[in-house]
Amino acid sequence: MYGITYLTAIILGVALCFGAPTKKTNACGYDACNLGDPSKLNVHIVAHTHDDVGWLKTVDQYFYGARNNIQHAGVQYILDSVIHALDQNPDRRFIYVEIGFFWRWWSQQTDAVRNKVKDFVNSGRLEFISGGWCMNDEASTHYNSIIDQHSLGAEFLRDQFGECGRPKIGWQIDPFGHSREQASLSAQMGFDGLFFGRADYEDYQTRNRTKTMEMVWKGSANLGDKSWLFTGVLPNGYGPPDSFCYDMFCGDPPIMDDTRLHDYNVPERVQTFIRAAQNEAVGFATNHIIMTMGSDFQYENANEWFKNMDKLIRYVNAQQANGSNVNVFYSTPSCYLYALNQAKRAWTSKSDDFFPYAHHPHGFWTGYFSSRAALKRFERHSNNILQVTRQLNAFANTNLRNSIFYLSEAMGVAQHHDAVSGTEKQEVAFDYALRLSQGLSSGNLVINQAYSRLLPKAGQPPPSVPQLLCHLTNISECLTVQDQTRFTVTLWNPTIHPVLHHFRVPVTRAYTVRDPSGQPILSELIPVSDQTKKIPGRTSTANNDLIFRASLPALGFNTYYFEAKTEEEPAKAQVKITHNEECLLQNQNVRVEIDAQGNLGHIINLKKSLAVEFHNQGFYWYQSFPGNNSRSEFQASGAYIFRPVSADPQPVSTTRTITCIKAENVQSARIVFNDWASQEIILYDEAEYAEVEWTVGPIPINDNIGKEIILRYDTDVNSGNKFYTDANGREVLERTRDYRPTWNYTVVETVAGNYYPVNSRIWIKDQGRQFTILTDRSEGGSSIHNGSVELMLHRRMLYDDALGVGEALNEAAFGQGLVVRGRHVLFLESPAASAAYHRIGAQRMYMHPVATYALIPQSYPSYSASYRLTWSALTDTLPMNVHLLTLDQLGPKEFLVRVEHYFELNEDDTFSHPVTFNLQSIFTSLGSIKSMQEMTLAANLALSDLNRLKWVTGNEEMLDRHVSKDTNANDTNITLNPMEIRTFRVELA
Amino acid sequence: MYGITYLTAIILGVALCFGAPTKKTNACGYDACNLGDPSKLNVHIVAHTHDDVGWLKTVDQYFYGARNNIQHAGVQYILDSVIHALDQNPDRRFIYVEIGFFWRWWSQQTDAVRNKVKDFVNSGRLEFISGGWCMNDEASTHYNSIIDQHSLGAEFLRDQFGECGRPKIGWQIDPFGHSREQASLSAQMGFDGLFFGRADYEDYQTRNRTKTMEMVWKGSANLGDKSWLFTGVLPNGYGPPDSFCYDMFCGDPPIMDDTRLHDYNVPERVQTFIRAAQNEAVGFATNHIIMTMGSDFQYENANEWFKNMDKLIRYVNAQQANGSNVNVFYSTPSCYLYALNQAKRAWTSKSDDFFPYAHHPHGFWTGYFSSRAALKRFERHSNNILQVTRQLNAFANTNLRNSIFYLSEAMGVAQHHDAVSGTEKQEVAFDYALRLSQGLSSGNLVINQAYSRLLPKAGQPPPSVPQLLCHLTNISECLTVQDQTRFTVTLWNPTIHPVLHHFRVPVTRAYTVRDPSGQPILSELIPVSDQTKKIPGRTSTANNDLIFRASLPALGFNTYYFEAKTEEEPAKAQVKITHNEECLLQNQNVRVEIDAQGNLGHIINLKKSLAVEFHNQGFYWYQSFPGNNSRSEFQASGAYIFRPVSADPQPVSTTRTITCIKAENVQSARIVFNDWASQEIILYDEAEYAEVEWTVGPIPINDNIGKEIILRYDTDVNSGNKFYTDANGREVLERTRDYRPTWNYTVVETVAGNYYPVNSRIWIKDQGRQFTILTDRSEGGSSIHNGSVELMLHRRMLYDDALGVGEALNEAAFGQGLVVRGRHVLFLESPAASAAYHRIGAQRMYMHPVATYALIPQSYPSYSASYRLTWSALTDTLPMNVHLLTLDQLGPKEFLVRVEHYFELNEDDTFSHPVTFNLQSIFTSLGSIKSMQEMTLAANLALSDLNRLKWVTGNEEMLDRHVSKDTNANDTNITLNPMEIRTFRVELA
Repeated sequence: MYGITYLTAIILGVALCFGAPTKKTNACGYDACNLGDPSKLNVHIVAHTHDDVGWLKTVDQYFYGARNNIQHAGVQYILDSVIHALDQNPDRRFIYVEIGFFWRWWSQQTDAVRNKVKDFVNSGRLEFISGGWCMNDEASTHYNSIIDQHSLGAEFLRDQFGECGRPKIGWQIDPFGHSREQASLSAQMGFDGLFFGRADYEDYQTRNRTKTMEMVWKGSANLGDKSWLFTGVLPNGYGPPDSFCYDMFCGDPPIMDDTRLHDYNVPERVQTFIRAAQNEAVGFATNHIIMTMGSDFQYENANEWFKNMDKLIRYVNAQQANGSNVNVFYSTPSCYLYALNQAKRAWTSKSDDFFPYAHHPHGFWTGYFSSRAALKRFERHSNNILQVTRQLNAFANTNLRNSIFYLSEAMGVAQHHDAVSGTEKQEVAFDYALRLSQGLSSGNLVINQAYSRLLPKAGQPPPSVPQLLCHLTNISECLTVQDQTRFTVTLWNPTIHPVLHHFRVPVTRAYTVRDPSGQPILSELIPVSDQTKKIPGRTSTANNDLIFRASLPALGFNTYYFEAKTEEEPAKAQVKITHNEECLLQNQNVRVEIDAQGNLGHIINLKKSLAVEFHNQGFYWYQSFPGNNSRSEFQASGAYIFRPVSADPQPVSTTRTITCIKAENVQSARIVFNDWASQEIILYDEAEYAEVEWTVGPIPINDNIGKEIILRYDTDVNSGNKFYTDANGREVLERTRDYRPTWNYTVVETVAGNYYPVNSRIWIKDQGRQFTILTDRSEGGSSIHNGSVELMLHRRMLYDDALGVGEALNEAAFGQGLVVRGRHVLFLESPAASAAYHRIGAQRMYMHPVATYALIPQSYPSYSASYRLTWSALTDTLPMNVHLLTLDQLGPKEFLVRVEHYFELNEDDTFSHPVTFNLQSIFTSLGSIKSMQEMTLAANLALSDLNRLKWVTGNEEMLDRHVSKDTNANDTNITLNPMEIRTFRVELA
Repeated sequence: MYGITYLTAIILGVALCFGAPTKKTNACGYDACNLGDPSKLNVHIVAHTHDDVGWLKTVDQYFYGARNNIQHAGVQYILDSVIHALDQNPDRRFIYVEIGFFWRWWSQQTDAVRNKVKDFVNSGRLEFISGGWCMNDEASTHYNSIIDQHSLGAEFLRDQFGECGRPKIGWQIDPFGHSREQASLSAQMGFDGLFFGRADYEDYQTRNRTKTMEMVWKGSANLGDKSWLFTGVLPNGYGPPDSFCYDMFCGDPPIMDDTRLHDYNVPERVQTFIRAAQNEAVGFATNHIIMTMGSDFQYENANEWFKNMDKLIRYVNAQQANGSNVNVFYSTPSCYLYALNQAKRAWTSKSDDFFPYAHHPHGFWTGYFSSRAALKRFERHSNNILQVTRQLNAFANTNLRNSIFYLSEAMGVAQHHDAVSGTEKQEVAFDYALRLSQGLSSGNLVINQAYSRLLPKAGQPPPSVPQLLCHLTNISECLTVQDQTRFTVTLWNPTIHPVLHHFRVPVTRAYTVRDPSGQPILSELIPVSDQTKKIPGRTSTANNDLIFRASLPALGFNTYYFEAKTEEEPAKAQVKITHNEECLLQNQNVRVEIDAQGNLGHIINLKKSLAVEFHNQGFYWYQSFPGNNSRSEFQASGAYIFRPVSADPQPVSTTRTITCIKAENVQSARIVFNDWASQEIILYDEAEYAEVEWTVGPIPINDNIGKEIILRYDTDVNSGNKFYTDANGREVLERTRDYRPTWNYTVVETVAGNYYPVNSRIWIKDQGRQFTILTDRSEGGSSIHNGSVELMLHRRMLYDDALGVGEALNEAAFGQGLVVRGRHVLFLESPAASAAYHRIGAQRMYMHPVATYALIPQSYPSYSASYRLTWSALTDTLPMNVHLLTLDQLGPKEFLVRVEHYFELNEDDTFSHPVTFNLQSIFTSLGSIKSMQEMTLAANLALSDLNRLKWVTGNEEMLDRHVSKDTNANDTNITLNPMEIRTFRVELA
């Protein structure tokens, strides 16, 4: 060893002497910050661009600057031009945020440019902020995908730039409301702070008046100070002060400083700037203020900004000689944050969230919680496939991460705050869907590769036919198999616990279905409903769904073998169907009572002897406010805004028809409200919940009235003014109608102002009962009356809400309004018992078993001789409160794994406790863990290297206890506290 | 010698070995050109920006990018960004044109940037094209100022960049019609070619069809091939082919070449480009074509253009491997020109001009010949002052060229094709006027300095009071002197010949006026007319113009001493005034007959016994076409376009009043047509011409009808369909009504299509008589009927003509429509004798004696004891056909001088011959000529170094005979041929 080190030193020494590039000392990070002059008002100029990863144009149109007739924006040029501008003056700094764009740009750059950029990053002149693939929405995104999209960006930055490229600040300047979970995740990703631009107008006024624009946000009710995050509301949205926009699209006066020319304006500009700085300082707590110099897609010609800011800084600071106290300089959000941190003062704290966001009394941004309901589901579905693809890739050791990237990238893009949020133009929504679809195709290839390794028994060749995904089984369409005489359905269970599942296959004939043991099992043909058959775009001729019971192993698969029956199908007779009669659905656990008029009467938890009475359940519509947006009173309801004309929604019909279907696997009531609204209340055998499959659309607008459709459950639960909604699928926040925890709330919009994002669940409760609804996608929801819960399912409007998208949200497909179908899962339990059901239930909804179909040529005996019909990665039983959040193969022997305790503190007697298990269990099938390193949540830093800034709140010091956990490779047992996620890089032997 | 050379070699050798900067070989000029591939269609990509030196915004607003709400344009950023883009790829080339902007930018650059720019210039990557201070208008500009503005730019380029910075190409891409004189001057400036973008739509079609888009233009009827200029009409205006605009303001698709992203478009873009190139080639004669990639104020973000063009070039040329014959590369107009030159083919020639320009059958750009008549005069007046300032600076050896620069600069800016042309917005017109006014103030300071040296007699101190200009004496206002008891008027005669001049001083009292000999001279008080008194903005209380006769020495001054009379003024009684009676004006030479109704009847040349009868003379108005411009039929008359509703203009009134005034110095008839139109026909004692001082405005528009006012002279001259107009104040072209010399003309607009620019003169003639009108500014003029001449004086309209200016030409001042006053000088002579009168007369109009006023404290004896009262720079009498065009002091002993033969061939028996004189004559007062070097017209190259490209026309070879003339300093005698201008740098001993 000694000899080698010595030799290396000599070689390096020689190289240095002869002028090879000397190793530069990096000067990124807080040490590179200008902290201003303590005796002055320090103005931190933050040059930035806000680049939507799709909105009015697609992400690639934005990247290239195509279709500028729609919106002028070209990110490739922004990055080109910023790099040049930084090169012109070493004082200049810039931040960049959206790695989805940066990646596109980076891959086209020469080494010379890349090295220049690296120099800028290493010297703190170019700083990546937030550094996700996009700036994700906070209302309609799921935590799994928020973490993924941040990790995707973080990984790129770490690989290309090392530690100087690691983002240290959350930067959610544009999203329309802010979730507590985002803050918590950001803290866990190692961020030292968060800034955003949009806060409710009353909240903003209050904070500005009380100098509490900046605070410590307690991001989790479970995780303590490792979830706390210093948070600042920006002074001016995310734009510059009035008249100081120097972008090529701004009309503000440049600094005209040649006295020989006309219109010399230096004195006026300097005085106006000094006034602007002093005015801004009034609302903030310290002698440091931030000015966000930039906006949407700005800096396409960075020189215009920087040239004028250079002058402005020079001339403003020159006034210090005349007594001005304003000291202005280029800075970054992290340097501004660091200056605040160094102020060593105590800050107020906040424990709730920033939903909903209103920019004026009639402008509640609660419509987008539900906008583009189909896209919102497709995104959630795609995540399901993505996680399954990663798991299969890992367990099959196919090491095809590069192929999975296309789906990861599409999902990263889809998290954008104008993507899954539903606030993009229709054409762009189509593009997001296309990307996901292409990503899924790419994922399918990986799945196929993986199964070609996992399926064959030892010594057998890989299958000759592919494993194909069917994405339209929710409308009873899987063209791949519908007419086939023989096929397999392989179901992958991505959870680490066994699941029981009733699975449907849309078919045109009857089949014998064999379970993995080869036994024919009960399969029933349930007729496809008329509502399904008339869904536009459905091309399937399947008349029935074949339903069968699947009991799947943990983290593994079962294959079911289908062979068409030759005789007349015998099962159908066993299905009993009645029309417009009372319909009682009942299994071992639940009874659902529906009257002959189609009204849901009761749901009864038989084992607990709990009942909830529904004095109304069904579809209602709000009339969208048809404003011209010329004044706040004329605010229209639109893609962003929910503003009903009246607080009383109308029922979509006064009568209903009901069809009652009873089979052994399932019982259901199909209740048709009208041409465009129906629900099927479903109770599977052994299920502890009832499902409501709702179908809405095409929403009629031939009366020129926009309509926003809710499904409302009016119960006898005495819930008062309280209800509960989750944040990004994780922790649940208590909501109080017509109330805000931190300011004196003026009630104007009694419906829209009470809407909150429902990512996965909403509940109401009273002393003995909790009525919980799980959703299969993000929806807006509320409880507008005692005992009532409503979820907004689908929206169709005729007016734009004048917030930029420039289109009414009026989705159509196949020449008519869009039809959307989805599911609610209803639990009636005691409050104390509910968590176990909704936690496990929600996990199974987003990590659903994934079916692949193969048109196998073999007979069953032949197939079963060659291929495994069941397989599990696990040999141990893992604790029920542990979730495998991420399993991603990084290299032949390297894996990224995230495991999660998915219960909150005190919500379940059994599960709300720390849990310890052996991580090796997950890798049993792959090998033994050689080493494991715990990482930050975004997996871009060893947790032991994390050292977050410390902040003081009113009473208590915030200590960062993010100390390294024991990552001794010899001990793979790890402990998870409630709601804890732990991230590891694992190397196998 | 040997030793020194050897030593140098050694030093160089050492320097090279040790890495000192090596001297670069300049690779600018034709040698740096890519001449393409002879077997291919070679596409010369010319990256360019067209930067109006004022139009919708002022020149400085354009420079800085201020007021982008009016028009987005910022030239500082264009130059910043182009320099960077050139730095990115050595293949890229760019041309820059308007030195008025470049100078503004250059003066703000660091040495590092300047050196980089110099490298680009020296390597041919940045080429200055045209290189005037602006891209001058060709219709309303005077040759004196065209030469000056080109010289101003050329001097800057020569000083900063040397020979590589010398423009070799005229580039008049935007001016609205092209004058032959511009071509001639360009040739004399040493240009090898000229390109422009706008040709009459029929002309263009014809040329495109016959592949004669490019030709040899014979720029002068007098100068032979040194005035010939290869000229090309550009293929697409000056813009890129359809869908290939990559400027940040274009919506065309970028090259999207990342196959991983959506919307990959390389194959489609390449094929579309190849088609565009092949289509363009159809209209051109060789296998070289030019594509002008740029437009107005483009390249503000040059990267967007170049990045996409780099890709386009790469991908298009890659198709050569698949058989494509298109070869595309970055080039410049001069390289394109050189490629054409190397084709060694014969070209057609052209001897007329490109006026008027129409872009469609109703779109004749003949309105701007008259638009903004007041600005057009102010510009001409300012030139008069500029030339006098230069002369005084030179003769007083004050060496204040840097101060004169402000006026030179303002004049350079004013030549722009949206400045003196009158096609700018009103606010911009005000700025041009302000610049001229500030320039004049600066000039006045120089004049004052000069006179403070020239006036004192030997040993006397400089005067204690300044010499002040009065610019408003045309409305009888000179506030400086009007109430004073004592002052001097010093008159500088800028011509090299003595002149007799009747001079007016607006006064409130009577004065004794002494001539330079001390003798009181006849001075008469002529009452200021009511029309003058009511001119808005006139603040003078002067009731009279004091008129006196001044006989001024050549190139020198006289001072007239004014002392207020104390007694009741006696002169007034001598002035006879009648009202509405016949008025016969008669002096020694001319008789003008006006009847009691105010109708001009005859003008009679008494000495030649020639008479012309007027069957009508007076003001008429055309109704401006009030179109919405939605189609060519709805083309409105506007700042650019003249389009009368009817071809028959209406008289402004049916009756007139006439006041006849007779004094000894002057006789005149004041004929009032109506509230807003009047003329004074004036005959000075001894004059050989009659003057018409016209006053028009405020043109009424309360009837919502735009009006274009002409002064029409309907005579009995049997002129048929021919009339004659000058080009830029120099050579005269014959015009034929409803006819174009080079194409089959479709007559649609019978009036507007026959309008031509009249810079200084227009005439009609028959066998024995020539009726010539000289103008004091540029006006549009024509002869619409046999014997008729009309000049458009003033225009006021309610509609924009949709060519960009976005305003109706509706000039107002002091809350009402603008009043404009001007002069026509009328000669009636035989055709053979006319030239002498109009040549000399026109010269005296634009090089008018300039009066300065001084409020001297001294009595006449005291003043005359201390100060010279008369002075001439000349001791010799110089030939009548020689004009001193430029006298500019470059340094203490260095001068730039231009002398000119200002008669054409064969127009005067006496003067149309070569003339020889001694240049030393002009410098007699300053010293003896030590050396003189003849220069090109723009004075940026020794004529002996000029080597223009040779072209072949149909029959004859074009030889450049621009060989060095004898500039032996020992022989200062020089010969001028008709219409020849010669330019010398002179060094005095």
